[in-house]
Amino acid sequence: MGHARFEDLYVSPGRLSWIEFSEGIRFKLLRVSSETGAWTVLFHCLAGSSFAPHRHLGAGEYLMLKGKMEVRGGAGEGGVTAVTGDYGYEPSGVVHDSTCFVEETEFFFTNHGPIAFIDADGNTTAVLDWHDILALAEPR
Amino acid sequence: MGHARFEDLYVSPGRLSWIEFSEGIRFKLLRVSSETGAWTVLFHCLAGSSFAPHRHLGAGEYLMLKGKMEVRGGAGEGGVTAVTGDYGYEPSGVVHDSTCFVEETEFFFTNHGPIAFIDADGNTTAVLDWHDILALAEPR
Amino acid sequence: MGHARFEDLYVSPGRLSWIEFSEGIRFKLLRVSSETGAWTVLFHCLAGSSFAPHRHLGAGEYLMLKGKMEVRGGAGEGGVTAVTGDYGYEPSGVVHDSTCFVEETEFFFTNHGPIAFIDADGNTTAVLDWHDILALAEPR
Amino acid sequence: MGHARFEDLYVSPGRLSWIEFSEGIRFKLLRVSSETGAWTVLFHCLAGSSFAPHRHLGAGEYLMLKGKMEVRGGAGEGGVTAVTGDYGYEPSGVVHDSTCFVEETEFFFTNHGPIAFIDADGNTTAVLDWHDILALAEPR
Repeated sequence: MGHARFEDLYVSPGRLSWIEFSEGIRFKLLRVSSETGAWTVLFHCLAGSSFAPHRHLGAGEYLMLKGKMEVRGGAGEGGVTAVTGDYGYEPSGVVHDSTCFVEETEFFFTNHGPIAFIDADGNTTAVLDWHDILALAEPR
Repeated sequence: MGHARFEDLYVSPGRLSWIEFSEGIRFKLLRVSSETGAWTVLFHCLAGSSFAPHRHLGAGEYLMLKGKMEVRGGAGEGGVTAVTGDYGYEPSGVVHDSTCFVEETEFFFTNHGPIAFIDADGNTTAVLDWHDILALAEPR
Repeated sequence: MGHARFEDLYVSPGRLSWIEFSEGIRFKLLRVSSETGAWTVLFHCLAGSSFAPHRHLGAGEYLMLKGKMEVRGGAGEGGVTAVTGDYGYEPSGVVHDSTCFVEETEFFFTNHGPIAFIDADGNTTAVLDWHDILALAEPR
Repeated sequence: MGHARFEDLYVSPGRLSWIEFSEGIRFKLLRVSSETGAWTVLFHCLAGSSFAPHRHLGAGEYLMLKGKMEVRGGAGEGGVTAVTGDYGYEPSGVVHDSTCFVEETEFFFTNHGPIAFIDADGNTTAVLDWHDILALAEPR
């Protein structure tokens, strides 16, 4: 049979190095699943950084460990302002045209699938999936 | 990292032997996932056979290849009578106190988790998960 | 809480109409999951039809109901030639640059996530996810 | 179609009350998925508390927020000793006959399926799934 036996995994993030994700944003890779396509990371975001506009091709799930994240414009714009301790789950298909960090922020994050970066017209410009995350974290 | 690389899988069921499941019911194992706990089989059920009462601890998904299956008492009792070609998805937690085969039936089936067999009071008497299915199909 | 109660689903494909997918290929939609992004269809492919080159952004799973499918060039090219009754599971990330139907073919198919269509250089030209499948099947 | 549209979810755990789980152990419910059977909680465990022996019928995933957890006897017994900041993923099927908290501990936890509590002979004595967690958190 072609089924791999999944093994347990134990990670002490303090021993991992931060990896560049985009300007002002770094991550540590905790886990990828080649079966489900989910990837789990710690994100560290400098004050003033933001994610480029993107569409979730899988649900996104987060737990805020430090700081403040303005999702979909933040609470003032009809989105969510998440602070330390908060938890959220955003469904597959949601568009995040503005995710900003007004102070230094760290959060635990799982994306249950890929992310598609989009331009101002909503067209896909690039896709980021578990292969890409793994390639960033474990370059050959 | 502890992530297994999931490989492709290709199965010609015609080359597999039928495995006893319960009285009048046999299966061929197509796939188990040790990560998600899903297991996919072909079930072959003799006319007059039935599954013992059980509760789905994961969603059940089926495609009827031949015959007739009376789920939750069948259409006459408020359940479903599935015939050749029909597709269904029953959510996690559903109780199947009566699943009967009034004629020889074959169907493709995935359970996205374990099954708990229950007694007349609804108490769990046994749990069947992907380990158990694999042990039935590949005895040492 | 924001958790939707998932309901059971029962479909008789004989009552559904075929929907155009691409030249020579039609489908019937059996299920999409807005949570996991999985979509399950019946595909009907005319002799001589083929899928445009694509990359699976989620695992693909199939059961052949009729005909013959040449995956990744078919068995003669190091891929798989699937015939009636065969089952396969191809992992997330696999590239299918050639999937051809040498005779009229019908198969049951679940993709556990999106598909990215690619050009000759492997660049993504379009992404097809559960939203798109649903929009094709249920136009407003 | 019977597919529910999954909605976004945003939770500030500081506004939730702790719910009794077992002696010395409380939880706050962040999310259950009626589709996948996953449930996500914060666990708070008093120094000296422990989980009763159990088998995971779905993978367990955790992020330590405070304290120390001895899994499968802890590092001294061949298991894992997890401290603040650590992340782990234990596969479906793993047996946890001893999970102890030597100091006050809080951790974020997702179980991707049910838990079966077991007796000294490994027999299932009770099953805990997302329905049960939801019933504990939202009694009628």
